[in-house]
Amino acid sequence: MKKNIVHPEWDIVMEVKSLHKPGTLGKLLTVIGEEEGLIGDFTTISIGKTYSIRDITVSVYDKAHLDRVIEAVHKRTRTKIIAIKDLVFEKHKGGKIHSTRNEDVKTISDLRYIYTPGVARVCKAIVEDISKARLYTNIANSVGIFTNGTRILGLGDIGPVAGMPVMEGKAVLYDQFAGVSATPILIDTKDRDEFINTVMLVSPTFGGIHLEDISTPDCFYIEDELIKRLNKPVMHDDQHGTATVTLAAILTVLRILGREPDKNIVVAQIGLGAAGYGIAKLLLDFGLKVIGVDPNIDSQNRLIEYGGEIDSLPEAMTKAEIVVSTTGIPGLIKPEMIRKGQIILALSNPEPEIFPDEAIEAGAAFADDGRSINNALAFPGLFKAALECGANSITAPMKIAAAKAISALAVDDELVPSIFNPKVHNNVVEAVKQAITLDIQAATL
Amino acid sequence: MKKNIVHPEWDIVMEVKSLHKPGTLGKLLTVIGEEEGLIGDFTTISIGKTYSIRDITVSVYDKAHLDRVIEAVHKRTRTKIIAIKDLVFEKHKGGKIHSTRNEDVKTISDLRYIYTPGVARVCKAIVEDISKARLYTNIANSVGIFTNGTRILGLGDIGPVAGMPVMEGKAVLYDQFAGVSATPILIDTKDRDEFINTVMLVSPTFGGIHLEDISTPDCFYIEDELIKRLNKPVMHDDQHGTATVTLAAILTVLRILGREPDKNIVVAQIGLGAAGYGIAKLLLDFGLKVIGVDPNIDSQNRLIEYGGEIDSLPEAMTKAEIVVSTTGIPGLIKPEMIRKGQIILALSNPEPEIFPDEAIEAGAAFADDGRSINNALAFPGLFKAALECGANSITAPMKIAAAKAISALAVDDELVPSIFNPKVHNNVVEAVKQAITLDIQAATL
Repeated sequence: MKKNIVHPEWDIVMEVKSLHKPGTLGKLLTVIGEEEGLIGDFTTISIGKTYSIRDITVSVYDKAHLDRVIEAVHKRTRTKIIAIKDLVFEKHKGGKIHSTRNEDVKTISDLRYIYTPGVARVCKAIVEDISKARLYTNIANSVGIFTNGTRILGLGDIGPVAGMPVMEGKAVLYDQFAGVSATPILIDTKDRDEFINTVMLVSPTFGGIHLEDISTPDCFYIEDELIKRLNKPVMHDDQHGTATVTLAAILTVLRILGREPDKNIVVAQIGLGAAGYGIAKLLLDFGLKVIGVDPNIDSQNRLIEYGGEIDSLPEAMTKAEIVVSTTGIPGLIKPEMIRKGQIILALSNPEPEIFPDEAIEAGAAFADDGRSINNALAFPGLFKAALECGANSITAPMKIAAAKAISALAVDDELVPSIFNPKVHNNVVEAVKQAITLDIQAATL
Repeated sequence: MKKNIVHPEWDIVMEVKSLHKPGTLGKLLTVIGEEEGLIGDFTTISIGKTYSIRDITVSVYDKAHLDRVIEAVHKRTRTKIIAIKDLVFEKHKGGKIHSTRNEDVKTISDLRYIYTPGVARVCKAIVEDISKARLYTNIANSVGIFTNGTRILGLGDIGPVAGMPVMEGKAVLYDQFAGVSATPILIDTKDRDEFINTVMLVSPTFGGIHLEDISTPDCFYIEDELIKRLNKPVMHDDQHGTATVTLAAILTVLRILGREPDKNIVVAQIGLGAAGYGIAKLLLDFGLKVIGVDPNIDSQNRLIEYGGEIDSLPEAMTKAEIVVSTTGIPGLIKPEMIRKGQIILALSNPEPEIFPDEAIEAGAAFADDGRSINNALAFPGLFKAALECGANSITAPMKIAAAKAISALAVDDELVPSIFNPKVHNNVVEAVKQAITLDIQAATL
């Protein structure tokens, strides 16, 4: 029997009409459960004399599974399914963001202040002193989320328009967790230099440049070039957001195991794509020793150039105390490769390189998968702090400060806190601001 | 004595502390008035036993004038000025817009719907059917407001960043009056082809392309090319927003004078810059005869190519029944040029080509300046309708329909209704949607 079950992730809501008498709902839920549907929320819409109407959230694997559940309910219960709603699509109707006015224009006076003729004086003030744009426009609190859609989630190159829901999702999180005004910008090119030029040309619009879901190796080149050319924060979230939260998780594991994050710890980074390379870089910046594993020669050279080592999977597994994997290959790490006392973070979604309990059984001191490693713990606060301080880049000390702040809030068996932890985003902002201040002080010594 | 006074347009708020006894405020306001300060709002902040504290809005011409008013209050009254606030700058602090989430993410379930893993299903649905992006993203209800800052208001080429307050102002009006999500995009180039390429590359982000404050003649070329290349609505507001509202004003004047807008009416369009050329084109589209006046040979040829005529200022004034001027040259039209019974719309700001009462005295049947001609009557509704219908361009019939809808709501001595008229934006949307429907029907006949 397979112990490790990947749970169904497609939530639908069934509106059901049942006889209002004892046992009806028990029967219904039992049948759904027997068909492997997972029950979520349960809301009563109305209760009449004879019938009740309820919304039941059920998680299924796919359309075929849903059809099977529906058929079972139909055949084996007396409950009627009135409607099926797909919550994901419901939540996306009309899009998830809107460019909104900060204040209503209520009177002719208001109009004359925010529009002509008043606005002309603000424009003039900015011409005279360009730094006034920070005060009197939204620029300094804004981030452009740029993608060409070449690597949207695990879906691959689906183009920028099909990637928009991901970009809007990021913008929602920026707004809610850090009050940053984030605007997706879809760039319709696969040419990396054209991409860079386009970002350069529209860059005055934004205080920060967030790069998202761009395929390797272009994402490395694009980020490097934009960092060189722009005097404002630039960050490819797939690399550095992920890296920051992974470092936070590692810090938590070490704390749980009662170990100092000392400089002699060896980490094996299995997979050197965007996420893997970002993690490897940040761990090197943090001072750990990193052995990378990846069949791609360019990826290998990239890591060596940054100060890492390269080895085979079995060798790296033998040498490392901490193993992080981001390959997207389920089951890549075999139980027999695990060394006693190792820390295993198998981060690939939806199925990891090795399931945590398999790793523990094979002797790992600690094991987890990537489900709690959420970039959204890092990027809103990182950019907010950078924007508030007018920082001209996002540096390793800033990411390390964010990782420490995130790790510090993990409690019980959490690797990192929930993104809904009321303190986490503010703590990240404050920690990163402090890192920026120290950086400025160091630079002026 | 000069009858026509240009009113001071710089509103400041004085916080004043006065003795709380009869006559004090009368004296204060009299002194301010004697120094030519115009009183606006008047708000009591607190009233104590001896003193009262109030906010008084005063309009002045400039800094020197403000200093004079302050000095007079100081010397000639017993009122103390505690603080001076510049309302325009107060209203601009932190910018005027923000990219906002439509809904809070409250639970882990919410997060899984709007972000990973749920969002992947929405992306996949869009890959399979690109038209689904209309339903499940913000794209179909969004407009990009593009500028390179080469012609911001009457300030000239001040660059895109200094132009941002104008762009944000437009976005505020889009949001408030039509619920359109409008995002300023500053493009850092004066090369027209580079500008066009940049708009093309980011165009998948938006449902409509609003061009703003781009200098002539590039604005014509840029708009023409983008209309040719893009299968979505493109409009340079300085041309067509202004033209739509000017046509509305002309329709109102004709109605006031009891005249049919018949096809034999001759209009002199003095000045063929962005606004003037846009007006001339729309009046030609509407079926009127247009004589253009402009020293620039390219501007002349542009109008001739579109079907207009060119003549000298005195000749055009002699031939025209309606005169529209957009030259930016105060006093260009002399009273002796006015023909009896003419309609004069001298639209230049802040001082028109001829003041309305001078024109009336010289025999005009009707005269007005441009202060009520506000583009914001047209652009929000025009784009909203185009977006809702999925129209692939903004056509002359759509602008004419908008102009008629705007004019129909003008009452008393208004040329056009206030932009706060609760009906106007919705009426524009409905009229333009009808024009689009008729257009589609005509095309399929």
